[in-house]
Amino acid sequence: MTVNVFFAARASLWNIYRPALTRAFAKAGLDASLSDDPSDPRSVDYLIHAPNGPVTDFTAFTRAKAVLSLWAGVEDVVGNPTLVQPLCRMVDPGLREGMVEWVTGHVLRHHLGMDAHIVNPERAWNRKTPPLARDRNVTILGLGALGAACAETLARMNFRVTGWRRSPKALASSIVCLSGEGGLKKALSSAEILVLLLPLTARTSNLMDANRFALLPEGAIVINPGRGDLIVDEALLEALNSGRILHATLDVFRTEPLPADHPFWCHPRVTVTPHIAAETRPDSAARVIAENIRRGENGLPFLHVVDRTAGY
Amino acid sequence: MTVNVFFAARASLWNIYRPALTRAFAKAGLDASLSDDPSDPRSVDYLIHAPNGPVTDFTAFTRAKAVLSLWAGVEDVVGNPTLVQPLCRMVDPGLREGMVEWVTGHVLRHHLGMDAHIVNPERAWNRKTPPLARDRNVTILGLGALGAACAETLARMNFRVTGWRRSPKALASSIVCLSGEGGLKKALSSAEILVLLLPLTARTSNLMDANRFALLPEGAIVINPGRGDLIVDEALLEALNSGRILHATLDVFRTEPLPADHPFWCHPRVTVTPHIAAETRPDSAARVIAENIRRGENGLPFLHVVDRTAGY
Repeated sequence: MTVNVFFAARASLWNIYRPALTRAFAKAGLDASLSDDPSDPRSVDYLIHAPNGPVTDFTAFTRAKAVLSLWAGVEDVVGNPTLVQPLCRMVDPGLREGMVEWVTGHVLRHHLGMDAHIVNPERAWNRKTPPLARDRNVTILGLGALGAACAETLARMNFRVTGWRRSPKALASSIVCLSGEGGLKKALSSAEILVLLLPLTARTSNLMDANRFALLPEGAIVINPGRGDLIVDEALLEALNSGRILHATLDVFRTEPLPADHPFWCHPRVTVTPHIAAETRPDSAARVIAENIRRGENGLPFLHVVDRTAGY
Repeated sequence: MTVNVFFAARASLWNIYRPALTRAFAKAGLDASLSDDPSDPRSVDYLIHAPNGPVTDFTAFTRAKAVLSLWAGVEDVVGNPTLVQPLCRMVDPGLREGMVEWVTGHVLRHHLGMDAHIVNPERAWNRKTPPLARDRNVTILGLGALGAACAETLARMNFRVTGWRRSPKALASSIVCLSGEGGLKKALSSAEILVLLLPLTARTSNLMDANRFALLPEGAIVINPGRGDLIVDEALLEALNSGRILHATLDVFRTEPLPADHPFWCHPRVTVTPHIAAETRPDSAARVIAENIRRGENGLPFLHVVDRTAGY
């Protein structure tokens, strides 16, 4: 029987995703009818969804078996009261690889002190060699699919990696994994380079406030490819101005695009990247979606189902 | 019997290396007398040597069993006609790790297009996502201790790595290893990012001339942490000006420090780093030297002996 799939994401993505999904469905042996404008919501079996797409009210989708998010972060949809179907997050190997590359690149950039050479109008020949990665502490808050992958890659590059998450988790032996409030204090106090990769939930919103920034060692680096709301912007700016934090590289913001008058843009020790750390890649994302539809049609449990209580 | 070791490197290094060597000799069980100014050259058993130190004529060191270089590159000493003892290169794990970190960092910097965000006075929010590393070709010329370590780390980061060296060599299966003139053409023609890690010899000097730069794909990136003489400066500048090469990040130069009036300093698409990609680290280098003296005293073959014909 034909499965009706509704592509309910941004219209501009349709031409990119339609061929990728068609290929993935064929490869998964699915008899699927894919549309970006279904005639009747009650005929839809699965929604491929993004919060900036056309659907914010799921009430009419009475037959839908699941809502398959195109995004890794589901904070804008998880609390939607009209959503009664299982919600699956996107856990895309392409997105994970992109994130690992972005995080490793920016950790190395700060570790090596690259900026002083990239912009060097005085032509200073200053032969200060950085320490080796084995003498550099990196702390990662959040050890989900993305945080754990970054932690493992950085540990393989010899960095001393400490991770922190909601509850204990076993990772590669060289990675210290902390949890709880005491663990957070410990994780922050050794963080020469801090990477934020937590999901946005009621518990993580505003996590990095003035008190927590004050726990960082003098001269720490903050890298945020997670979510803008993890950081209290004013507290970060104060910590930058006091010298506690030497530099912040930020990929995500409370408002995006970052408004032209936001102080992050012109702060000499802030680097803004335009939410590019990780992007869902159509080919690999389409395979994840096809696999979940195949599972749904065969009575198997969905992958990456969101825990509504935890919020991710 | 006490072994007499002469520290014949830059005077300013003596206070750093004396304690590191003393510790390493003790750990290796060596009864060694270490001096930076031996009373009689004829009493010296081993020289720890750097070309910018006090010894350029080895004639008086009639008893010396080996010259142990503190540098990885030996081009300034290998042709010295007064040197009749075995010459050992420095193959320092600390230097290797530093090189891997510098190369991986700068490859990721260019791969991710970081510079456009580090310097962005127009506050442009340009969401151009780079390809994944698995879709990016990196070519490394030189697959010695440093080149091979960089190739393996970049391959583990998913880059498509092609290496080139004088003669064939087996590396990890995902790394294409080419050799010979035909192999060089092939290696250059696919190099979106080119890393130069060849030793400087008569055959590699001026290797990257106008003809070879012309083989690179349009928009290639050149990264040189090897030796300044591998590149014909004028040919690189022309290739940069024509747009063939998008950017060059250079750590080594024909004259160092790079003279203030050299065009590399002010070229908008050249990054100069002050020969910091890799530095011999006293602790790990001292262990390598102690191990070679231990070998010499026990009639075992030295490690990292230079092939005078090959030049490294």
